[in-house]
Amino acid sequence: MDDDSRTARWGQDTEIPLFVAALVFLAAYATRVLATGLPAYWRDLCWFVMLALWLVFVVDYAVRWRLSGQGLRFVAGHLLLTLVVVLPLLRPLRIVPLYDEVQRGRGQPRISLYARVISYAGLSTMILGFSGALTVYQAERGAPGTTMHTFGDAVWWAASTLSTVGYGDVVPVTRLGRAIAIVMMACGLALLGAVTGSFSGWLMRTFTRESDEGPPGR
Amino acid sequence: MDDDSRTARWGQDTEIPLFVAALVFLAAYATRVLATGLPAYWRDLCWFVMLALWLVFVVDYAVRWRLSGQGLRFVAGHLLLTLVVVLPLLRPLRIVPLYDEVQRGRGQPRISLYARVISYAGLSTMILGFSGALTVYQAERGAPGTTMHTFGDAVWWAASTLSTVGYGDVVPVTRLGRAIAIVMMACGLALLGAVTGSFSGWLMRTFTRESDEGPPGR
Amino acid sequence: MDDDSRTARWGQDTEIPLFVAALVFLAAYATRVLATGLPAYWRDLCWFVMLALWLVFVVDYAVRWRLSGQGLRFVAGHLLLTLVVVLPLLRPLRIVPLYDEVQRGRGQPRISLYARVISYAGLSTMILGFSGALTVYQAERGAPGTTMHTFGDAVWWAASTLSTVGYGDVVPVTRLGRAIAIVMMACGLALLGAVTGSFSGWLMRTFTRESDEGPPGR
Amino acid sequence: MDDDSRTARWGQDTEIPLFVAALVFLAAYATRVLATGLPAYWRDLCWFVMLALWLVFVVDYAVRWRLSGQGLRFVAGHLLLTLVVVLPLLRPLRIVPLYDEVQRGRGQPRISLYARVISYAGLSTMILGFSGALTVYQAERGAPGTTMHTFGDAVWWAASTLSTVGYGDVVPVTRLGRAIAIVMMACGLALLGAVTGSFSGWLMRTFTRESDEGPPGR
Repeated sequence: MDDDSRTARWGQDTEIPLFVAALVFLAAYATRVLATGLPAYWRDLCWFVMLALWLVFVVDYAVRWRLSGQGLRFVAGHLLLTLVVVLPLLRPLRIVPLYDEVQRGRGQPRISLYARVISYAGLSTMILGFSGALTVYQAERGAPGTTMHTFGDAVWWAASTLSTVGYGDVVPVTRLGRAIAIVMMACGLALLGAVTGSFSGWLMRTFTRESDEGPPGR
Repeated sequence: MDDDSRTARWGQDTEIPLFVAALVFLAAYATRVLATGLPAYWRDLCWFVMLALWLVFVVDYAVRWRLSGQGLRFVAGHLLLTLVVVLPLLRPLRIVPLYDEVQRGRGQPRISLYARVISYAGLSTMILGFSGALTVYQAERGAPGTTMHTFGDAVWWAASTLSTVGYGDVVPVTRLGRAIAIVMMACGLALLGAVTGSFSGWLMRTFTRESDEGPPGR
Repeated sequence: MDDDSRTARWGQDTEIPLFVAALVFLAAYATRVLATGLPAYWRDLCWFVMLALWLVFVVDYAVRWRLSGQGLRFVAGHLLLTLVVVLPLLRPLRIVPLYDEVQRGRGQPRISLYARVISYAGLSTMILGFSGALTVYQAERGAPGTTMHTFGDAVWWAASTLSTVGYGDVVPVTRLGRAIAIVMMACGLALLGAVTGSFSGWLMRTFTRESDEGPPGR
Repeated sequence: MDDDSRTARWGQDTEIPLFVAALVFLAAYATRVLATGLPAYWRDLCWFVMLALWLVFVVDYAVRWRLSGQGLRFVAGHLLLTLVVVLPLLRPLRIVPLYDEVQRGRGQPRISLYARVISYAGLSTMILGFSGALTVYQAERGAPGTTMHTFGDAVWWAASTLSTVGYGDVVPVTRLGRAIAIVMMACGLALLGAVTGSFSGWLMRTFTRESDEGPPGR
């Protein structure tokens, strides 16, 4: 059994459990940040779960690196994988490989290209917005002069930022909050460009097909 | 007569009356929200008209589903149709099938692809903005600390949101208003991407044609 | 001599004088709005010049319509021409036909497609922004609660609006000002989409050419 | 040895030293603006370094012009080169030719087209944002009614402007600051369009490849 097939098999076996683990990680972080009334015992448990899951992610990364038989080139060639080990909150962004594993098992026909790009970029934007709202809320909570009083404010801020509307009624004021916001803008703009580009392409194709084929299937 | 042709014929017969019904629905809602000085009798009438029309939309949806002979796949394959049954304010967005019915009856040549995408997305943006301004205005009116005092303010807010300018001089402050605003941003950005993409494509084609053919037809 | 060639010749003979007239119209309007210290005599002169030039534009439109030998279809087929007769401030947007006339006379090679789209859309954005800043400034000047105190504020507002940044430190508060602003947003977004789309295309082509041809011509 | 090859050789020999010089220029300017507590001696040294480097850039421009054997057409054909002589802060934008020189020397395969456009436009946006934040901060510092108190505020303003979010919590209020901001918006929007366009294209290609080739290489 060569390196490539072992890497592929490791991916097949771990992709779905790791995705579930990523969702649990996000849920544990959200509980820690939002459930302020929770007894210290439960908050420590959340922290422990996050640490344990992060170690799992690191082990998965190490095994993949080892199996690949590559040196530092592995890091350069798996930028998204490396990113989600450093920032495990963003791990749910690995939904494309997951989708691939699920599809291969079922043998179903894939949905159209535009639909896949829109749903992938749309889901990624939602995960990014939720993670960003959580971390910025944690950084801003209780800061002097903050306009972000509740988690609802943080979600509203994240939505107005990722859509580039930017009302400015709720804004981060701390250094950490602003730094996270800048990273979120950079990622969000790219994802948004993918959504609008795909929608535009889909609309174009829909109209073209109509002209060519007569009565469209609605 | 098979299922497909019966579905197509039902679509042909009902598309135009249902579009008129959708405009009446929007007008009744606008009257209810804006005409605050109206006697209770008229306001109840608006409410009754909206309910009746919504039942008509539900019946149309049920008939189409029945005729299609499909199970739950019908819902997945007709997302826009399902959406406008749940949110009948957005029903005017079904202007593409309407246009198609009208065109088929007249046998006229269709206008250019870019013009169709621009006019469809532009009209959809206007309907979305008007419906969004109405519902957000209803949610915000009289809320403590609101900056949205008149319906004119709501329209101004909707325009600055859909264009992603986002001045922030008028913003929703209630939970419901903000939730509607986030849905509006998501839809608006996609439509806007289609408008700018098509305009860019049209301008490119215009300039290319000029270089190729010499004196352009202006 | 048939209708088509007479239309083309009328276009050739009048395009350049009419473009100069459009710039004079814009200058006269700017003088009337900005030079508040001017004696009434000069302000009346500006008004008179604007009226005279507008009559010239109307006559040009009538002659073209007559020469075309078309009925109402002329209006539908020349939307930009019709628009700039109703709103003569936007007449400088007819720079594409002007460019065409100038080029035909000189026989020089045309500049690249992307460069033409970028310069056309960029110039149009500047003309739109300047005209919009002038009219909104005239509508807002002296309105109660305005944040637009000088023409510099109006230009700053126009730039932040057309780029969809929308800081919100300077915003129109009157109904007329906001209506003009909404028209400006709609036009500006389309032009902006054309600029960014072309720039993206040009960059792609530049990088592709480099990979193919080796040492690039810088 | 003809003109062309001498121009090319001059480019090969000077590109890397000049890029280093451009970074030193930017660092000297940043020191002058930010290190307000520095003794006058060091601040004068920064000024002197900047002047000397600028003279180097002018000499390089003159030599290239001379070698090209062209008249005024040289200026029109090398717009970016001319721009970075006038505004040397933007010189790091000449990273494309630099990359080209480095690649030619090493003979390594180039990275993919989308990756190159994204990294070029992304890097350019960062350089533009940093230079813009520096110059606007210098113009705004100490202005009456300013909201830009620290350099961190200026960076936050630059990020929210270049992403077109535009919160409006930090805005320039002086004429010079606003003029620089408008130039920054114009450049930033074009670069942003290139980034989002390329990312959208890359995502499309990734998804297409997956459907075609089965198991994707991750």
